[in-house]
Amino acid sequence: MNQKKMISLVNKIRETKPLIHNITNIVVANFTANGLLALGAKPVMASAPEEVNEITEISDALVLNLGTFNKVYLESMKIAGKAANNKGIPIVLDPVGVGASCFRTNSAQELLQYLHIQFIRGNAAEVANLIGHKWEIKGVETGNTDGDIVSLAILAAQKLKTTVIITGKNDIITDGNVVFQVQNGHPLLTKVTGAGCLLSAIVGAFAAVEKEPLEAAVSALVFYGVAAEMAAVKTAALGPGSFQIELINQLANLTGEQMDQYSLVLRREGDLSWVKQ
Amino acid sequence: MNQKKMISLVNKIRETKPLIHNITNIVVANFTANGLLALGAKPVMASAPEEVNEITEISDALVLNLGTFNKVYLESMKIAGKAANNKGIPIVLDPVGVGASCFRTNSAQELLQYLHIQFIRGNAAEVANLIGHKWEIKGVETGNTDGDIVSLAILAAQKLKTTVIITGKNDIITDGNVVFQVQNGHPLLTKVTGAGCLLSAIVGAFAAVEKEPLEAAVSALVFYGVAAEMAAVKTAALGPGSFQIELINQLANLTGEQMDQYSLVLRREGDLSWVKQ
Amino acid sequence: MNQKKMISLVNKIRETKPLIHNITNIVVANFTANGLLALGAKPVMASAPEEVNEITEISDALVLNLGTFNKVYLESMKIAGKAANNKGIPIVLDPVGVGASCFRTNSAQELLQYLHIQFIRGNAAEVANLIGHKWEIKGVETGNTDGDIVSLAILAAQKLKTTVIITGKNDIITDGNVVFQVQNGHPLLTKVTGAGCLLSAIVGAFAAVEKEPLEAAVSALVFYGVAAEMAAVKTAALGPGSFQIELINQLANLTGEQMDQYSLVLRREGDLSWVKQ
Repeated sequence: MNQKKMISLVNKIRETKPLIHNITNIVVANFTANGLLALGAKPVMASAPEEVNEITEISDALVLNLGTFNKVYLESMKIAGKAANNKGIPIVLDPVGVGASCFRTNSAQELLQYLHIQFIRGNAAEVANLIGHKWEIKGVETGNTDGDIVSLAILAAQKLKTTVIITGKNDIITDGNVVFQVQNGHPLLTKVTGAGCLLSAIVGAFAAVEKEPLEAAVSALVFYGVAAEMAAVKTAALGPGSFQIELINQLANLTGEQMDQYSLVLRREGDLSWVKQ
Repeated sequence: MNQKKMISLVNKIRETKPLIHNITNIVVANFTANGLLALGAKPVMASAPEEVNEITEISDALVLNLGTFNKVYLESMKIAGKAANNKGIPIVLDPVGVGASCFRTNSAQELLQYLHIQFIRGNAAEVANLIGHKWEIKGVETGNTDGDIVSLAILAAQKLKTTVIITGKNDIITDGNVVFQVQNGHPLLTKVTGAGCLLSAIVGAFAAVEKEPLEAAVSALVFYGVAAEMAAVKTAALGPGSFQIELINQLANLTGEQMDQYSLVLRREGDLSWVKQ
Repeated sequence: MNQKKMISLVNKIRETKPLIHNITNIVVANFTANGLLALGAKPVMASAPEEVNEITEISDALVLNLGTFNKVYLESMKIAGKAANNKGIPIVLDPVGVGASCFRTNSAQELLQYLHIQFIRGNAAEVANLIGHKWEIKGVETGNTDGDIVSLAILAAQKLKTTVIITGKNDIITDGNVVFQVQNGHPLLTKVTGAGCLLSAIVGAFAAVEKEPLEAAVSALVFYGVAAEMAAVKTAALGPGSFQIELINQLANLTGEQMDQYSLVLRREGDLSWVKQ
């Protein structure tokens, strides 16, 4: 991971203001849009099948979020996704709740077959269900990142030919070959609805300005994680309401230099040891 | 009302993290989810007819909110409600705006006929319209709780065979036989959109951990009312924006002991006098 | 512009609490409702074709927002709009993103042909696209308001027989004849999603209590702009999250007198000079 590049990506987002097309849900649409605006990107949330083709074509990244999914959204995601694939616009899939219903699992798998998706960002259970594994939630909350999660991420990335980001206590990012771990972040993120969804949108913003997927994904996770840490320093004693607002503030205020200073990125070597970047 | 039990319910929610399935509206979905997360419960907001059956089956309570209602939501609510009834999962109905349109009134009555609903939480006008009474809003804002509202609550509870919660300056809770009044709360709640909707969801969270409906409902109203009072102490001088955020903070921070200390619960006796609990 | 009237309109909203029917989108529905509540109006966001007729008929203004538009919303807007026209209830159209897709542009034009719309509130590009002009964004961010924007506003108002409000660095309000400029506001508004959408809803609230369109529109823009300035004084050093919350506080706290004190309204004279009101 090139540190100078990570810094430059933040500035590049703020200068070029990439347009991020989100087909997302009623729970997180507002928070996602405000988070993207704070970061310096521009959000658009159009979801009608009649227009998503044109909206995606003028966008710099497409984020597909299955939060409050239904048949119309599925249709729109396929149309928008095809437009993105045709124009070479990166797609991020957030498989919210996959595994909780057949409709959701089948729809996600249908999207993965129909589209070329560059990034998947979910928790371990969601990613496992995407590739047909039943996943017992375990290890996610422990101090060390469970080796099972790394194996799962690699397997999913290889099987789905995409960059997989599994978030939890520590975050794993892999293209199926190289594996990074990001240790930034804060437990209060689990107390804010849509914190993961906003992260997926921010991966889209970084992917809009950086073609190398691992660089884009790791940078997005470090940036978001450090912003959450900063917000927690200011608001952990107050509560999750204040944290949520301060997170938006930090997304606007955090510089690439601060992000670099506090980044906690490890890379897995050939002998399976983790080396600090 | 057993005070020790009230305290224990808060702890039980925080330990067991019940999953609350909300079929709700675009206005309050985010605020409801954040309020439930702050309290310690887990929200899920799936609404597609294709999947609500499975989502409800893994949930601990179902909350049906008519805010931005339409035909698809009606279908989903019937499917989810049947799944809840079959599994013995408690249902809370929030009849937002019933009386404002025939479609809304008829749909609510259809749900009440089709499903066995354990709790209804609304204002006096909404509850009156549910049972076909035209209700002139009066007395709700006066210092003493109008006897009409108590009569209305009892009548509705008996007619609909459910626990009725009518919120206003003071809140009335009845199963058609025993009547409680909760005097906690704060007028700033009327300045936050979805404050009532969130309360309905919190009733669901308490019902998820307590089978006795009056215990669950009264505890939920006291908890929410005291949290609002605490939030108002800190933010009333600032405004409703700050109050909204602080309410989320307080839902996370308030302990069962504090809730008990500030609770203002009355029970109506056989001679129609109110006795402090 | 009558200053005493401007002051009186704020008080009139707070006393009469007009009901504002918003057919709007998943991104801004919550923020819009909270903003209207803070101001002193009452929001209702019903959108189902089955009921919007009845909801509009009991409302004092109707606000049509194309944010996350689709075919069902188009149908609802036509039904609600006809009800408003029949009852003489003012309509505000917010043509969010018009020009970004054919569906959106065609739908907006269909609404304008089908309904008598009293106010259009958008940015220069959106208003230009409404009347079939391709608009290159330029001048909007410069210190002086570009003459092109004034010409565009006048042309649109004349062509569409409505009051046009183009917002940007400075805001232009015209009925096609008289032209006002409001210089209140703050750049942080561009960092909050739905800041423009909320303004459109607030124009609806002022139109609900004032029949003269220019009085209503200019008052709404001054009120909102001064509230934003006040909020920025308190929160600009913190970030857009805090600003968003403080804006809601200020909408509740700002008095008509303060609004008058800080108002920056210019009127264009016959010689095209601007005279401070």
